[in-house]
Amino acid sequence: MRCDVVVVGTELLLGQIVDTNSSWIGEQLAAVGINSLMQVKVGDNKERVIAAITQRLADADAIVVCGGLGPTHDDLTREAIADVMGVPLELHDDIAAVIEAMFAARQRRMPINNLKQAEVPVGARVIAQTRGTAPGLICPVGNKVIYAVPGVPHEMRDMMERVIIPDLIARSGETAVIASRVLRTWGDSESGLNERLQPLINELDRSPNTTLAFLASGWEGIKVRLTAKAKTKDAVDVLLDNWEQRVRQIVGDIVFGIDDDNMESVVLAMLRQRGLTLALAESVTGGLVSGRLTQVAGASDVFRGAIVSYASDVKFGLLQVTPGPVVSESAATQMARGAKDLLGADIGLALTGVAGPEQQDGEAVGTLCVAVVLADGEAHAKTFALPGQREQMRQMSVISSLDMLRRLLA
Amino acid sequence: MRCDVVVVGTELLLGQIVDTNSSWIGEQLAAVGINSLMQVKVGDNKERVIAAITQRLADADAIVVCGGLGPTHDDLTREAIADVMGVPLELHDDIAAVIEAMFAARQRRMPINNLKQAEVPVGARVIAQTRGTAPGLICPVGNKVIYAVPGVPHEMRDMMERVIIPDLIARSGETAVIASRVLRTWGDSESGLNERLQPLINELDRSPNTTLAFLASGWEGIKVRLTAKAKTKDAVDVLLDNWEQRVRQIVGDIVFGIDDDNMESVVLAMLRQRGLTLALAESVTGGLVSGRLTQVAGASDVFRGAIVSYASDVKFGLLQVTPGPVVSESAATQMARGAKDLLGADIGLALTGVAGPEQQDGEAVGTLCVAVVLADGEAHAKTFALPGQREQMRQMSVISSLDMLRRLLA
Repeated sequence: MRCDVVVVGTELLLGQIVDTNSSWIGEQLAAVGINSLMQVKVGDNKERVIAAITQRLADADAIVVCGGLGPTHDDLTREAIADVMGVPLELHDDIAAVIEAMFAARQRRMPINNLKQAEVPVGARVIAQTRGTAPGLICPVGNKVIYAVPGVPHEMRDMMERVIIPDLIARSGETAVIASRVLRTWGDSESGLNERLQPLINELDRSPNTTLAFLASGWEGIKVRLTAKAKTKDAVDVLLDNWEQRVRQIVGDIVFGIDDDNMESVVLAMLRQRGLTLALAESVTGGLVSGRLTQVAGASDVFRGAIVSYASDVKFGLLQVTPGPVVSESAATQMARGAKDLLGADIGLALTGVAGPEQQDGEAVGTLCVAVVLADGEAHAKTFALPGQREQMRQMSVISSLDMLRRLLA
Repeated sequence: MRCDVVVVGTELLLGQIVDTNSSWIGEQLAAVGINSLMQVKVGDNKERVIAAITQRLADADAIVVCGGLGPTHDDLTREAIADVMGVPLELHDDIAAVIEAMFAARQRRMPINNLKQAEVPVGARVIAQTRGTAPGLICPVGNKVIYAVPGVPHEMRDMMERVIIPDLIARSGETAVIASRVLRTWGDSESGLNERLQPLINELDRSPNTTLAFLASGWEGIKVRLTAKAKTKDAVDVLLDNWEQRVRQIVGDIVFGIDDDNMESVVLAMLRQRGLTLALAESVTGGLVSGRLTQVAGASDVFRGAIVSYASDVKFGLLQVTPGPVVSESAATQMARGAKDLLGADIGLALTGVAGPEQQDGEAVGTLCVAVVLADGEAHAKTFALPGQREQMRQMSVISSLDMLRRLLA
């Protein structure tokens, strides 16, 4: 089964918006064993949208067309698909009623051009909108199919997960249930993981129902994705549980979470479970660790706050670090203790290091010292040699320091 | 002149990496008046790379093929282009010597497959590599042309700017110099800017040598891009200076910078110029403002640090805010004063607000109170009603607060 992608929007070609939709769709399709072998960006021009759809449909069994379903004169996807199908558009009263009701519920007048979104190529089925005003479309063309979804990411994702991926699996003749589980890891390279998991990968190669893939995700770590296929959801879960256990037995605690977990949410959950609060002292990261933790809604019951001690004399003064070199494990430990005390937290975590472009106090760019002071006052410190340019070094510092805290809490 | 783009790499189709190269290329081409009307992602498969190149070359005058020039067996772009040209590959000794010298300079053994990068389709010209090991290619096909560049963004950008864009302009018969200037703005919507600049846009529509475009960039504001064409670089600069002045006369101080400036770099430069230091108190943004300021190398001579007072009693204790509702202009002002004093800075900037998902103390999600306490102790406070979900609200808070400080410094 091959499903190519056409994303529609002049703003994508002009570089005003980066197309992340086709990447996301490609990832989801791969997870259920469907190939997406060519993905095309095209502008809001009916003739070229038709050309792109026609070319992709010649090669693939199915295509997803993303964008161009809105109410303006630039939104041409419906017309283009009707042209490829060789049918006219017809107004669906029930869709029009839904759109009118959405405007009424928000007490806003509906501009008449919104009714354009209720037009459907004759012979197409509608994917009901649950979030926006534009419905999606399932448009048969011979024994192939064109799906149309809005370009707004959360509307697109909803329709892909709810309708299109199940429909594609059904069309592929697949009657099994397919599901994936992503194990989030930090602390080994892709080749290192691959080497350790090789015996298990060999075993999986002989198994007809489960696959394993690595997804390198930069400073978010390496994702290990297990995909299983079975007759029922329960049987799939048993397979995933079993192989997850096998992977964990081999790679141990470098697995920090699954699926939608990230390092921040995992660390916050561990602290919450143990009834502990956290304070930070940040230098090299300048507030990034704190910014990431507070991105998680509900962080406030665990996270007290942070002292960003960017100037050295703020470390010596407010945080009571002994004057001297500030990129050291002892400075980090004093910073962690200072933040813990000043902010009244159970645990203090501190980062100091060199992001560049210049070395500092004889310490090389990429040097990171992290310290954790636990509730009982016990201190742990560690020095990392991180790669990369300024921003990469800082982002790697965020996840490295939170991972150190995670391991100490475990 | 039309120049389409083909990006090569299976990892792009699988969603492991988002393709940002084609967006960047599209933006650069648009800035010099070249259309990029279709952009394609294709995997590391020779047959499909050939198909993608052939299809794009049928429609466009030129194409840029990005990626697949490395040394591994997956790197097939050279072979695919030679196939489209109908010529064999030949080894260029001089390129091989450069590659060997690069390895020698790093005192590393050169794996023999690196010599693959010295193979060039007969009849193609080479774009010398200045950063990586893979050279680029200029491959004539009849009166059209295929350019090949590496997928590594900084290598690709270097070759585009240094060779390919000038070559495309020359091929288009354009003998003029074309250059762009981007005015960065914050504080008005795209439609609002459009309305205010309409008389000037009308005037530009009658001008043969300068164009104006809006690029909406989310929480980075709206970019106004002026593109001018003239016989010499000096004449282009005169046009750009003139129209920049005209735009500034109309929209005033919502222009905060040009080209590579961002709000952080502009505010830091203003502080530096005035010999002032800055301290922050952050609540709703949890360290994001501080994290963004310290992303700019050299921030340390201006930026003292921040107190992230996420828990209310950290505001009441450490920052000496009067106990009571914490999302208010008076709380923000006390936070700013507290940070200024504790961190020993000339200026204090504070943010407190509600990012959601729930309202707080009767204040709606999206409420942001910002305060600035200047060097003489004078306080300014302002309340913003920001749109959006948690992350959008927090990011809009960053730029809104820095913009308020910028206006007070101006």
